[in-house]
Amino acid sequence: MHITELETPAVVVDLDALNSNLTRLASYANQHGLKLRPHTKTHKIPVIARMQIESGCHGITVAKSGEAAVMAAGGLDDILVAYPVFGREKLGRLAVLALDKKLTMAVDSAVTARAISEAAHKAGSTIHLLVELDVGMRRCGVSSPEQAAALAAEIETLPNIRFAGITFYPGHIWQQPEDQSAALDALGQRVGAVLDRLSSMGLSSETISGGSTPTAYQSHLVPHINEIRPGTYVFNDRNTFGVGACELADCALRVVVTVVSTAVPGRAIIDGGSKTFASDRFISGDGKGFGYIVEDASTLFESMSEEHGHLDISNAGRSYKIGDKLTVIPNHVCACVNMHDRIWYHRKGIVEGSWQVEGRGKIV
Amino acid sequence: MHITELETPAVVVDLDALNSNLTRLASYANQHGLKLRPHTKTHKIPVIARMQIESGCHGITVAKSGEAAVMAAGGLDDILVAYPVFGREKLGRLAVLALDKKLTMAVDSAVTARAISEAAHKAGSTIHLLVELDVGMRRCGVSSPEQAAALAAEIETLPNIRFAGITFYPGHIWQQPEDQSAALDALGQRVGAVLDRLSSMGLSSETISGGSTPTAYQSHLVPHINEIRPGTYVFNDRNTFGVGACELADCALRVVVTVVSTAVPGRAIIDGGSKTFASDRFISGDGKGFGYIVEDASTLFESMSEEHGHLDISNAGRSYKIGDKLTVIPNHVCACVNMHDRIWYHRKGIVEGSWQVEGRGKIV
Repeated sequence: MHITELETPAVVVDLDALNSNLTRLASYANQHGLKLRPHTKTHKIPVIARMQIESGCHGITVAKSGEAAVMAAGGLDDILVAYPVFGREKLGRLAVLALDKKLTMAVDSAVTARAISEAAHKAGSTIHLLVELDVGMRRCGVSSPEQAAALAAEIETLPNIRFAGITFYPGHIWQQPEDQSAALDALGQRVGAVLDRLSSMGLSSETISGGSTPTAYQSHLVPHINEIRPGTYVFNDRNTFGVGACELADCALRVVVTVVSTAVPGRAIIDGGSKTFASDRFISGDGKGFGYIVEDASTLFESMSEEHGHLDISNAGRSYKIGDKLTVIPNHVCACVNMHDRIWYHRKGIVEGSWQVEGRGKIV
Repeated sequence: MHITELETPAVVVDLDALNSNLTRLASYANQHGLKLRPHTKTHKIPVIARMQIESGCHGITVAKSGEAAVMAAGGLDDILVAYPVFGREKLGRLAVLALDKKLTMAVDSAVTARAISEAAHKAGSTIHLLVELDVGMRRCGVSSPEQAAALAAEIETLPNIRFAGITFYPGHIWQQPEDQSAALDALGQRVGAVLDRLSSMGLSSETISGGSTPTAYQSHLVPHINEIRPGTYVFNDRNTFGVGACELADCALRVVVTVVSTAVPGRAIIDGGSKTFASDRFISGDGKGFGYIVEDASTLFESMSEEHGHLDISNAGRSYKIGDKLTVIPNHVCACVNMHDRIWYHRKGIVEGSWQVEGRGKIV
C-alpha cells in the first residue's frame, strides 16, 4: 500500500530518512567525542529508541516516569529522566525500575534528592543523580556554584543515590545568533566555576550533559559537555529546517492529509488541524504557517481549527480538488506525534508497517 | 481519595458543576425553542454524551468518522458529523452505521454528496445531509444562495441521501462585539436569502443549525436557527470565562499538578506543559497565561515547555514549595482533553471514578 492510500490524517515516517538522520548525528558525536543520549520524547516508541542505540547512542533520555517505564519494558537499559519527578508512587516505580536498569535523574533541590533516596532505599536500588544548573533559561536548575556544591554534597550523604555529574539546557543561547560567541564564553565560565567547585570537594562529574536538536551539530562548541540529548533530530521538522539544521529531505516524519473542501474561494481545507499537528508556531522562520506543504511551497498553511487545516491557495502553484492527498511537514514534530496513537513507516512511499506510540499519555 | 492525591498531572471533572452546566443550557435552549445538539469533540466520552441526552439534548455532534463510531457504539442514536468527511473507507463505515442510527452530515460540494450517496447506496442506508454555508468565517461552506440551491437540488436527485437543511458557523460575528447588531442583521439576510431560494424550489429546511459555546446564551439572537451545537459548555474553560459566558465555578474541568521545582528565583515549575494543556492562548482575555491558577489569581502561568509549566510567582499572593498541588483551569478545554487517555470525576473533591477518553486519536 502507498502512503497516500492510508486513511487520513496519517502520520508517516520514511525509514531511509530516519536511518540517515540517526547515522549522521551518531557520526558527528563520535567524531567530537560526545556521548549521544537522545531524548525519546520526540517519538515515545521503544523500537525507535533501540534503533538509536544500535546507531551508536549510549543511552536514552525521557521526560516522564511513565515514559521511563515504557522504555524499560521495551528493552532500554540506560535511561536518564531529565525531569525533577516528584511524587511517592512515581518515585517508587522508578526506584523499582532501577533494580535492573541504569537509571539517572536530574534534580535541582535537596527535597527531591531526599525523596529519590528514600524511594531507592526502600526498593534497594541505586539511582544516579545529575545536578541541574540554570544557565539562563530560567526553567529548572540551581543558579550558583555554591548551590550546586551544596546539593551535590547532600546527595553524597544520602543512601542509595550517587552524584553522577551535572546537566543544563543552553537552549536560550541559540536564540540570539549575534551574541553566540560571547554567550558561549559566559556559559563556559559559569559551568567551569561549578565544575571547579565540585572538583575542589573531591566530586568528579562523570557526566556533563547539555544540548538540543536545533543546535546538535554545534554541540562541540558548547564548553565542557561530554553528553548531548537531542530529540527532534530523529525526525526533524519545519522548525529544524528553518534554523538551518537539516534539509527538507531530512524531515522523515510527515502527515498525509486529504483535501475535504474547496468551496470558499482562495481556500482549500485539509482534514488535519490543531488536534493533528498541534498549534506550535514556525518559531525558527517568519512565523507564518502551521506546516510545510511538500507538494507546493507556494501554498500557505495559514490557520487551523481543531480538525480543519486552512490552506491559503491564492498564490498556489497548483490547483486543488476534493480528495487530493497532500503531505505536510509539521512545525514541531514532538507535539505532533504526541497527538497520535499510531504512526506508519514506509520506504519510498510503500507502507511497511506501523508503530504504536507506546509512551504517549503517561504520567510525568 | 481526594483529587490532590491523584498522580499528576490529573484531569479532573466536578460532577456537580458538569450537571449544572448541562441543565442550565438545556433550560435556555428549551425556553427559546432551540434544539440542542452538543458537539462532543470537547469530551469524546460516550457516558457524557448520554448525560447530555438525558439533560434534554436532541442528538449529538461529532467532528470525525472515528468519533461517530465511538459514540454510536456508546449508545448514541442521532449523530451529526459536522465535517465534510471524504474517503471511501470512512464513508463506507459511516454508511453502515446509518443502518441503525440516524446519521446526518454537513457537505459543501456535490463531489462529497455523490461519494456519500454512493456509500449509503452500497450499504442500503439513508444519510441526511445539511448544506453548509460560509457566512464569513471562510472555512467550509458554499457562498451564495445559487450554490446552496444547486447543491440541495443535486442532493435530492441522488439515491440514499436526503436534504435535511442547512448549517453554518457564525463564530466570527462574536469576535467584533461593536458590530454585532449589524453583523447579525447581515447574517439574517444572507441565511434568509438561502432559505427563500430553497423554499421556492419546494425544499424545506427541517434543520437550520448554527452556534457555538462562547455565545451559546446569545443563540436566540441568531436569525433563523432552530438548532445549536455548543461543545465547550459541558466543561467551560478560561476562554469561556474570559468572554463572560460562565463563572469560574462553572469551569468543571481542571488539571491537578504538582510543583516540581522552585530553584529559579521568581519561578515555580509545575508538572504540566504543552503536552498536558495544549498551547492554546487566552484569546478571550489579555492573551497572557496558559491557564488560570485556582489557588492564586496573582500567580501567572507565564509559559510552557512540553512537560514544564512555568509559573511567574514574583507577584504571587502565596509561597510555593516542591510537592505543592495546584489546580489549573485550561485556556481551551477541548485541546486539553484531547491530550489525555483518561480523566477523573469527583464530587466535592472526592474521586468517584474515571472515564476513558474513548473518542481521542481517531481518524477524521
